[in-house]
Amino acid sequence: MATDICGNIYDSIYSYILYNPLLNSVGIVMHSGMFESVLTKHWFSKEAVQLWNDHSVIQLYLDIEAALARAQADLGLIPKMAADAIAANADVARIDFDAMARDVEVTLHPFVPLLRQFEALCPPDAAGYIHWGVTTQNIFDTADAIKVGQSNARIDVALSETLEILASVAATHRLTVQAGRTHGQHALPITFGQKVVSWMAELRRAQTRLNDAAAEAAVANFGGAVGTFAAMGGRGRAVQDRVAVLLKLKSADVSVRSSFDRVANYVAALGLMSAGVERIAQEIVFMQRTEIDEVTEAFNTGKVGSSTMAQKRNPSHALNMIGLARMLRSRVPLAMDSMVRPNEGDSASGNVSSALLPEVCIFAISLAEGVARLVRGMRINVDAMRRNINSSGGLIMSEAVMMQLAPHIGRHHAHDLLYEVANDVVKGNGCYRTALAAHPTITKLNGVVDLDYLLNPANYVGESEAIVNDELARFHNEAKNRSGDAVAE
Amino acid sequence: MATDICGNIYDSIYSYILYNPLLNSVGIVMHSGMFESVLTKHWFSKEAVQLWNDHSVIQLYLDIEAALARAQADLGLIPKMAADAIAANADVARIDFDAMARDVEVTLHPFVPLLRQFEALCPPDAAGYIHWGVTTQNIFDTADAIKVGQSNARIDVALSETLEILASVAATHRLTVQAGRTHGQHALPITFGQKVVSWMAELRRAQTRLNDAAAEAAVANFGGAVGTFAAMGGRGRAVQDRVAVLLKLKSADVSVRSSFDRVANYVAALGLMSAGVERIAQEIVFMQRTEIDEVTEAFNTGKVGSSTMAQKRNPSHALNMIGLARMLRSRVPLAMDSMVRPNEGDSASGNVSSALLPEVCIFAISLAEGVARLVRGMRINVDAMRRNINSSGGLIMSEAVMMQLAPHIGRHHAHDLLYEVANDVVKGNGCYRTALAAHPTITKLNGVVDLDYLLNPANYVGESEAIVNDELARFHNEAKNRSGDAVAE
Amino acid sequence: MATDICGNIYDSIYSYILYNPLLNSVGIVMHSGMFESVLTKHWFSKEAVQLWNDHSVIQLYLDIEAALARAQADLGLIPKMAADAIAANADVARIDFDAMARDVEVTLHPFVPLLRQFEALCPPDAAGYIHWGVTTQNIFDTADAIKVGQSNARIDVALSETLEILASVAATHRLTVQAGRTHGQHALPITFGQKVVSWMAELRRAQTRLNDAAAEAAVANFGGAVGTFAAMGGRGRAVQDRVAVLLKLKSADVSVRSSFDRVANYVAALGLMSAGVERIAQEIVFMQRTEIDEVTEAFNTGKVGSSTMAQKRNPSHALNMIGLARMLRSRVPLAMDSMVRPNEGDSASGNVSSALLPEVCIFAISLAEGVARLVRGMRINVDAMRRNINSSGGLIMSEAVMMQLAPHIGRHHAHDLLYEVANDVVKGNGCYRTALAAHPTITKLNGVVDLDYLLNPANYVGESEAIVNDELARFHNEAKNRSGDAVAE
Amino acid sequence: MATDICGNIYDSIYSYILYNPLLNSVGIVMHSGMFESVLTKHWFSKEAVQLWNDHSVIQLYLDIEAALARAQADLGLIPKMAADAIAANADVARIDFDAMARDVEVTLHPFVPLLRQFEALCPPDAAGYIHWGVTTQNIFDTADAIKVGQSNARIDVALSETLEILASVAATHRLTVQAGRTHGQHALPITFGQKVVSWMAELRRAQTRLNDAAAEAAVANFGGAVGTFAAMGGRGRAVQDRVAVLLKLKSADVSVRSSFDRVANYVAALGLMSAGVERIAQEIVFMQRTEIDEVTEAFNTGKVGSSTMAQKRNPSHALNMIGLARMLRSRVPLAMDSMVRPNEGDSASGNVSSALLPEVCIFAISLAEGVARLVRGMRINVDAMRRNINSSGGLIMSEAVMMQLAPHIGRHHAHDLLYEVANDVVKGNGCYRTALAAHPTITKLNGVVDLDYLLNPANYVGESEAIVNDELARFHNEAKNRSGDAVAE
Repeated sequence: MATDICGNIYDSIYSYILYNPLLNSVGIVMHSGMFESVLTKHWFSKEAVQLWNDHSVIQLYLDIEAALARAQADLGLIPKMAADAIAANADVARIDFDAMARDVEVTLHPFVPLLRQFEALCPPDAAGYIHWGVTTQNIFDTADAIKVGQSNARIDVALSETLEILASVAATHRLTVQAGRTHGQHALPITFGQKVVSWMAELRRAQTRLNDAAAEAAVANFGGAVGTFAAMGGRGRAVQDRVAVLLKLKSADVSVRSSFDRVANYVAALGLMSAGVERIAQEIVFMQRTEIDEVTEAFNTGKVGSSTMAQKRNPSHALNMIGLARMLRSRVPLAMDSMVRPNEGDSASGNVSSALLPEVCIFAISLAEGVARLVRGMRINVDAMRRNINSSGGLIMSEAVMMQLAPHIGRHHAHDLLYEVANDVVKGNGCYRTALAAHPTITKLNGVVDLDYLLNPANYVGESEAIVNDELARFHNEAKNRSGDAVAE
Repeated sequence: MATDICGNIYDSIYSYILYNPLLNSVGIVMHSGMFESVLTKHWFSKEAVQLWNDHSVIQLYLDIEAALARAQADLGLIPKMAADAIAANADVARIDFDAMARDVEVTLHPFVPLLRQFEALCPPDAAGYIHWGVTTQNIFDTADAIKVGQSNARIDVALSETLEILASVAATHRLTVQAGRTHGQHALPITFGQKVVSWMAELRRAQTRLNDAAAEAAVANFGGAVGTFAAMGGRGRAVQDRVAVLLKLKSADVSVRSSFDRVANYVAALGLMSAGVERIAQEIVFMQRTEIDEVTEAFNTGKVGSSTMAQKRNPSHALNMIGLARMLRSRVPLAMDSMVRPNEGDSASGNVSSALLPEVCIFAISLAEGVARLVRGMRINVDAMRRNINSSGGLIMSEAVMMQLAPHIGRHHAHDLLYEVANDVVKGNGCYRTALAAHPTITKLNGVVDLDYLLNPANYVGESEAIVNDELARFHNEAKNRSGDAVAE
Repeated sequence: MATDICGNIYDSIYSYILYNPLLNSVGIVMHSGMFESVLTKHWFSKEAVQLWNDHSVIQLYLDIEAALARAQADLGLIPKMAADAIAANADVARIDFDAMARDVEVTLHPFVPLLRQFEALCPPDAAGYIHWGVTTQNIFDTADAIKVGQSNARIDVALSETLEILASVAATHRLTVQAGRTHGQHALPITFGQKVVSWMAELRRAQTRLNDAAAEAAVANFGGAVGTFAAMGGRGRAVQDRVAVLLKLKSADVSVRSSFDRVANYVAALGLMSAGVERIAQEIVFMQRTEIDEVTEAFNTGKVGSSTMAQKRNPSHALNMIGLARMLRSRVPLAMDSMVRPNEGDSASGNVSSALLPEVCIFAISLAEGVARLVRGMRINVDAMRRNINSSGGLIMSEAVMMQLAPHIGRHHAHDLLYEVANDVVKGNGCYRTALAAHPTITKLNGVVDLDYLLNPANYVGESEAIVNDELARFHNEAKNRSGDAVAE
Repeated sequence: MATDICGNIYDSIYSYILYNPLLNSVGIVMHSGMFESVLTKHWFSKEAVQLWNDHSVIQLYLDIEAALARAQADLGLIPKMAADAIAANADVARIDFDAMARDVEVTLHPFVPLLRQFEALCPPDAAGYIHWGVTTQNIFDTADAIKVGQSNARIDVALSETLEILASVAATHRLTVQAGRTHGQHALPITFGQKVVSWMAELRRAQTRLNDAAAEAAVANFGGAVGTFAAMGGRGRAVQDRVAVLLKLKSADVSVRSSFDRVANYVAALGLMSAGVERIAQEIVFMQRTEIDEVTEAFNTGKVGSSTMAQKRNPSHALNMIGLARMLRSRVPLAMDSMVRPNEGDSASGNVSSALLPEVCIFAISLAEGVARLVRGMRINVDAMRRNINSSGGLIMSEAVMMQLAPHIGRHHAHDLLYEVANDVVKGNGCYRTALAAHPTITKLNGVVDLDYLLNPANYVGESEAIVNDELARFHNEAKNRSGDAVAE
């Protein structure tokens, strides 16, 4: 293209595009995956991407092999010297990744090539004791358990941070009146603080579920190909118990490889969390709409909304959260379906779960850390909240008026009266307050019905303040207990 | 059709089919839904279908209104006489369903028509106090919480029954040797008992998750349209607490309608359970295959496999479980996605969850009760297990041989030796035992390698028996604790 | 409950609820399925529900058996008298549904009980020729093909009607200026007509895909249990060809039962259509929002938005469409997954598809007919469109100003200038027009930059009108061709 | 780890694992994404991964900008010299990817940083004309259209190759008898050739749908932010038409960004194809099972089934196909859901589709090329097919016997007779042939019922051979037409 600017450029553009797509010949690595592509990698937590990269994962495999050898030495199955040598050489920096990639392609086995390199790194009298009596999938499953734990640790911290910020926002806005909306329509007044504590309550439950599910999934599994420990001379369960202690995991009850429910449960809990985060992000996108303008996400000079529309201030970060949340949830059915594993093991399901676990964890960490940033950056526009709730001239207060009229004329009758007046107003016939004031029934009840009071949204937010206070108390109490636990540990 | 058998029958067949599909004119009710269609209703638990039918659900709505009125009377918000009258008339048998259906269509509101009938049934001075200060969705959400509880109670019983049966099977077959298979290939020997306890462990976890999730979802929610209790004169939370006690639910922390996570979590737990059941059903379908024949589901004379193939004995029930499990799981994403509810409420999400909750609960009860029947009916063919594991002439014992050779010639070398011999045998060159016996390396190790012992699958099932015993102990212990709890309550 | 209003009412409420849920003892039929429940049946097209009810479906099974017999008689495989008798008795009104339901439960076979009743209705010398040489699934698959065709015929009509209405709206509003929005923010002006034709273009493509997919799925399949026609004495393909002619279907190329791709493709096309409809419904819900108020769905007195908030006018119908669309799409993965059918047939997949096909077709007909009603009822509020687009004081016109400045000061510089001015205005410092007029660069370009012109949205809708006209021309042209085809047939 | 092998190793292992996961400090790039991870990249087509890497995609963006400038110059909107300069500099090799990545993070805009670099590469009097009057999403959408076309071209070739191989297999095995199985049970004989042509028919339909969908998605879209072409001075549609010619695309009818249906339709077609491929792969996995052994995938020395079980020959490649197919289909709902785009554009949906399109195309190319390899490598074991079909001692021939008896004793009676005999045999009471021969009814029909003939599977494969021949004829005919088209073009 660069060299062919004259002549029949048109065909050459296309033939260039269509027939020479394989331009990656200069030796540099160019990414196709979303985590590393220059176009999309900013969507993701850098730390999350590193946590799951080949370097981290393969170091973990080596560490697990070392822990296994250590446990077997402790129990006298293999020589102590072997365990020491295996531990001493369990260093990813010494692995030749290119060679490994080539061998994986020949053997079509994802682990044997690494094992062979590791064996070559160890002295011959130790090498034979690597991976003693176990199968590849044992290492992979145990590594997944640890990676899930590490991922969840980041998520937990980020959710706590998010809750901390939300608690502060809710406290500030416990009396800030805002239009409550159902089905897209103004319904009744609410406080912004109450909206925020409803997010908190949901996120707190999500956090609890994640921590429970991560704990359940923290399982060491070393039963060999079919879970019988047949190659460990009757000491298999003891070895597994010992490795579990070393790796701070629980020892699997029934060490069959084809049970994936614990991890699938964790993925489901991630799905639930993602939906809670998406709900918050959707609310912010809505509240930032040009016509609403009640809440906006952070904006810094330099952020570009559009290459041509200079006024654009998009809720890019909130929209990004929404996209990630949906991507995450698309993997939940895959995780649940892959629980259905034929017989004692099956690589079709195994491939699916190997591929989805890094994805969902990276998505989830990015969501949890992202929502913390999102809510920290929120700017709340109390004036716009007031403007919007008043924009319908009091219609949003219909229930308040009805509840006042009900004892005098019956609830049913009151509803019908207001339904008619509201219909008239919506058709454009005057304003609600005037129409109410002029209605004969209300005129008659003059001393009783104080329209000025009834049409003031601040007088009809019910128990919002107490609801906010209660949730804040629960949150702070729980946070105190958690930090107490941490200290106690 | 019945009257037009001559003439141009061909067109008439088709025009009849195409243009007169609306044949349902005789006044009888004909079903389109799978729960009631004559073709499919046998897939489902009758009790589950009844639990969620209009009769049960609407009675529950009325009961909740009665409980609400009772609570409000207890707290002095409405007259005690009103609460009594409301309770006295809360009887679904007095509701005119046809009229209700017509009114729903006019008002496009799912609850106001019922409310109007209920009001008409009550004396005027009580009628006005029905549904005092709440919104329709409060009743619906609270009813869902109770229905989830009822559904889960059935599921819990059925899973316990399933576990009881499996425990007995596992105990019987703790020493029954079977081919362990990975990737569709014979791998190592396992015991059938161990396979069964791996099902148990997964189902026990599923049961625990379901009970936890059902408890979390058992929430009463009466905050009104936007969760502020604005129409309850400052006593809203107290009313909700009281109703919760009456209905044996917890009172919602933050009574915002747009939090659906607790129910979505329950649906996810159902999804996980369904996958556990499907795994069992798939195993049985596989083991019943004509060539395998190791386990078959119950067969009774009268059961028809095919209208033409008289020999057919299909694992119909297991296949039915698989179908139901997949249908159930297809609703999980719907449940999670419908957590993302705009603002304080939204009927698009609400409709989705209203429609899916009965479905998933009926599917799940049918699965839980169905899997109990399935495993109760299993016939285990120990001879076929023996025949199959021996069919490869000892190849399945390669690891056992390798582990024996390893100390003498190194694990790596042992693996290569057996890899070559196995390749030869698979190509059709003789039998494995003979080839091994003739191999110079093995010949040399003559005193050491006892092929008769090594090629006997029963000698290489590792710690299977202990694994079975441990799981049975855990199960019985847990069952004892549960019944202890029940007594204590 | 009705009788126990005193005493310890609280426990009795709950025990009633929990332990007596099976109240359906009065002999009336109470529904659990959403298509027939009094609470939800108004969501669905009555005709769609009837099209798929047991009455219609079983009549179709009988008709197909009659057509099969007719074809076999035509080809001399069975006596003509048998075919006549079979046709004469193929009448669903004579089927005892209760007996059939009982027998299905005993045999666990969905068709043999019907077959037995049908045989009993025919004279003995004809009865033996019913279902000659075929298998149950052949009848089911062929019935599905016809039911898909019937369903699609209704969808096609409804989509054409929708397009007709939209065409008229687009024509009326081809010059109606509205705020174009991206990422929730005002972007550039658009016309409402253009928005509407973008819906049309998508729906037209959806309609074309549906008609193509329905045609592809219109296949007769009579190859017997494994598709070999083994029981038809070498005349099987000829029989199938003949039945296909009678039923106006195509004869299956390869009559293997385990190919479900054609139906799955149709379900996918329904999924695409549903997303197109949901997009429209979402836009209407948005445009009806209290603060936006640009378009509202039909409202008739009698429609109730809320039992307490008399002012509520919810976009109930649009929200209903959204819910249905999501339910429909949740079945698409189920349809695709159930293409993966083991061997020559498998009832797990078969059950899944039997259950989902009526559902998706009822959802889809309800959506197609519903969207026609939805757009027919739209009320367009041109004043609100004008108010909203002007609400940002001209910020939405930034690109127009930039394109005018660009030739004079460079596009890049122009963008930066406007970015700064816009930032200032958004911070609350004055109005956009004033700030622009006062900007030194613009002051310098005085004769060139006509702010009155540039800030008028009507001057920057580009080629909207032509785009509308083109789409209308395409639509009318296509509609003419379709009606031409219809006449020609 | 490497240095700490003594002391309290246990804690150090874990603290190393838990607290130092970020080991990627040596400056090398380590992958987290499945396309580039050393553990998984062998699952994917290398060419597919390259087709979608940053290098290829960004070159394409530049090429599209060049084509746009060319079209605008041709129509006189911008100077010809500008277009020449833009084309001359449209070279991805000159882009600084690291700088771009940094700028994307600051601006939170995926394209402006590239644009700025590209502008800097061009002479100032040309730079201002880059991206003239369009918006980022126009470039992205058009690039996606081209990438879909390129991906589909590879898929099309691979599917044709697969069909070619299958055609040859089917021709060879048109008479090879195999057990036909339904519900996991032997049903009736089939030929392996017929099984293979059923795969072909499904793949041919998948290929046709893909080519149709790819053609529909091949659309150029340059309408600017809201599709009005407002910034192109009334020549927008003409420009778009011209670019479409240059890029061999169609010009979008209605150039609204928020229509994603064409791409979603293509993704759905990929989903259908993936299910067709998975069906084949599942069949091969089943037929390779140790007990079945009828078909195995290619095995070469060097391929390792297990690190410990030397005999293992896993159908790894087929299992890999299954995993990829499921991953692909998990993205179909995401694609359909992301059709529901608010207003004129929305980056939440946009992000989702940007991320899923490379994934599904890479999965799909890998599947299409993979299934070609899979079927090319199949080894067919005719002996095992014979052994298996005979293993039930003739039970599989029950229908054949029934069809023979039917004219003499009635079909119903014949079915009952065989049902009883089969039951007896299955219970272990003797062999089927003997039991039939001894049955009084059959004895009576001695001259009529030739059990030797009836129990020979080869005599009851119906019209299998003709079915195979017909499909082969259709395939070859279609292939001829396609190559004719190619020549004609």
